[in-house]
Amino acid sequence: MPKNPSPTLPLFVGVDVGGTNIKIGIVDDRGERLAYTKFPTQADQSPEKSLDRIKPVVQELLDDAGLKMEDVAAVGLGTPGPMDIGRGLILTPFNMPGWHNFPIRDALAKALDKPVTFANDANAAAFGEYWIGSGRQYCSMVLITLGTGVGGGIIIDDVSVDGAHSHGSEIGHICIDTGLDALVCPCGKSGHLEAYASATGIVNRAKEALRAHPESSMLDRNAEGSPLSALMVSESAEAGDELALQLVSETAMYLGRGIAQLAHVVDPEAFILGGAVDFGGADTALGRSFLDGILAEAKRLTFPVVAEELKVSFAQLESDAGYVGAAGMARTEFMKSASA
Amino acid sequence: MPKNPSPTLPLFVGVDVGGTNIKIGIVDDRGERLAYTKFPTQADQSPEKSLDRIKPVVQELLDDAGLKMEDVAAVGLGTPGPMDIGRGLILTPFNMPGWHNFPIRDALAKALDKPVTFANDANAAAFGEYWIGSGRQYCSMVLITLGTGVGGGIIIDDVSVDGAHSHGSEIGHICIDTGLDALVCPCGKSGHLEAYASATGIVNRAKEALRAHPESSMLDRNAEGSPLSALMVSESAEAGDELALQLVSETAMYLGRGIAQLAHVVDPEAFILGGAVDFGGADTALGRSFLDGILAEAKRLTFPVVAEELKVSFAQLESDAGYVGAAGMARTEFMKSASA
Repeated sequence: MPKNPSPTLPLFVGVDVGGTNIKIGIVDDRGERLAYTKFPTQADQSPEKSLDRIKPVVQELLDDAGLKMEDVAAVGLGTPGPMDIGRGLILTPFNMPGWHNFPIRDALAKALDKPVTFANDANAAAFGEYWIGSGRQYCSMVLITLGTGVGGGIIIDDVSVDGAHSHGSEIGHICIDTGLDALVCPCGKSGHLEAYASATGIVNRAKEALRAHPESSMLDRNAEGSPLSALMVSESAEAGDELALQLVSETAMYLGRGIAQLAHVVDPEAFILGGAVDFGGADTALGRSFLDGILAEAKRLTFPVVAEELKVSFAQLESDAGYVGAAGMARTEFMKSASA
Repeated sequence: MPKNPSPTLPLFVGVDVGGTNIKIGIVDDRGERLAYTKFPTQADQSPEKSLDRIKPVVQELLDDAGLKMEDVAAVGLGTPGPMDIGRGLILTPFNMPGWHNFPIRDALAKALDKPVTFANDANAAAFGEYWIGSGRQYCSMVLITLGTGVGGGIIIDDVSVDGAHSHGSEIGHICIDTGLDALVCPCGKSGHLEAYASATGIVNRAKEALRAHPESSMLDRNAEGSPLSALMVSESAEAGDELALQLVSETAMYLGRGIAQLAHVVDPEAFILGGAVDFGGADTALGRSFLDGILAEAKRLTFPVVAEELKVSFAQLESDAGYVGAAGMARTEFMKSASA
């Protein structure tokens, strides 16, 4: 993390609560990342313990960077859904049993004695890319994150599409296959993008494909007993395995279908792909052909004036996106209240 | 049009340019409709002629209602797409050959000497329902209009989702069937909602169904030589014709699929159905069963937390929605600039 000799005040704290870790960062008014740390969430225990740790951690981050708590104007907080943004509640995130129905926004505001802006973690990540990442030159964008699941966020003119019931931008649940043999999504419904393009979906499709093609080198990669992963599919594809290459190009096709739906509804300036599943990213031929495949399918399915304008690229902030975006959302709120 | 004895100032003029008519209305600051007229668009001739007519028409409307031009704060203008909202251009609307690439926003601003807010006509209609129609109690809503085509608009917290390239909220082009035998949309792509749920789509589906069921009473209705219409399907269904009833319930199912897609992306407070195809509307058993069918299919396809919150109802403003909404958008812009 490069130390910025003269941060632009005021400062903002971003807190990204995940099922595994709580990430905390300090950013300045331009989005420069000044300090960062993380610690385990203890998702099965009472959240008060983790909350108690946040204040000394933030103080330590500030001290180490030669910054002052009084220069922190506001705090941004991202958590997994389902949540109730208006009431500041975490509801029932899948892998955080101890935190269910916890009024986290107000608890954090009290712990830090600062105003807290509360957001869905995926929407916060989208805001991070929008503010200082791949989306910084755009006024609107859609982030699609490919990880264990498929998530994402939609930002239009500084505003995140959170939804009236905190369920906006649930991009993983766009339907891309209406057929009777469509894959079933972890949410229980059929044909959703997440069932195809998440790491889990890719592995499931790989297992199915391997039954018909046991000659694929993907099988060698998990011969040592480690379970098949999306990374193994990616590595096999990079090594030229035909079945793996086909899985990558099918994943691109499924994403293209989801993007076509979003293009007709949102018409953003650009689509940005984040998350661990990037098939090597923009620096590899495989990653670039993945982007090309997505774009080709999306163009095929949208009407010409929309197709012409489609743009797809990879995200830049990696795991920083969540806390940076949460801080950015807090900054936007702060500027609004300052000008009101 | 009820005359309001004491309109709330300032006033706003709404202009809704369609392929057939130009509708012009005066509304007050609360959205009360004070005066209204319309005249033919002359879509194949130069738009300057129509523009020249607007100023005297607005003046006459004001005079007749005892209102003054100086109390008009701003003008809202809705036109069919494709368009370039940022540059104020009509581009190439299908049925307005004489108006292609006309800088209509600035021409109207010059003609009336007032600031003009420019919008897609469907998005303006959505804003009308949002401001004073079926959506007035909501902070976000999606309007779906079923007419010759399927259009609509998305409004979130006073803001219309216009899209970065003026192609946002193109709800008719959401894909609801990914199968190889999906119907082809007038835009040339397959499986789009418009191919199924527009008046044209319903008639096409009815023709296809009648081939297998020549006993249907729908055939009697066009025995006199008038071509089959969505209204005939509606009337046959109301009279109990089984095939027509099946067409209505299938139309509901297709709309439910489109709404499920939108619910996962936008999560609005409510969905509102406008346009001529309403199968009798909220006052008839058929209209209500149409809404029930839409809701049932949308709930079946969305995940539980989203399904619980789904609401669908009919629009209220009918053909006033466009000019009222355009005026409402002008009012929102005016208030923003007044407070800046």
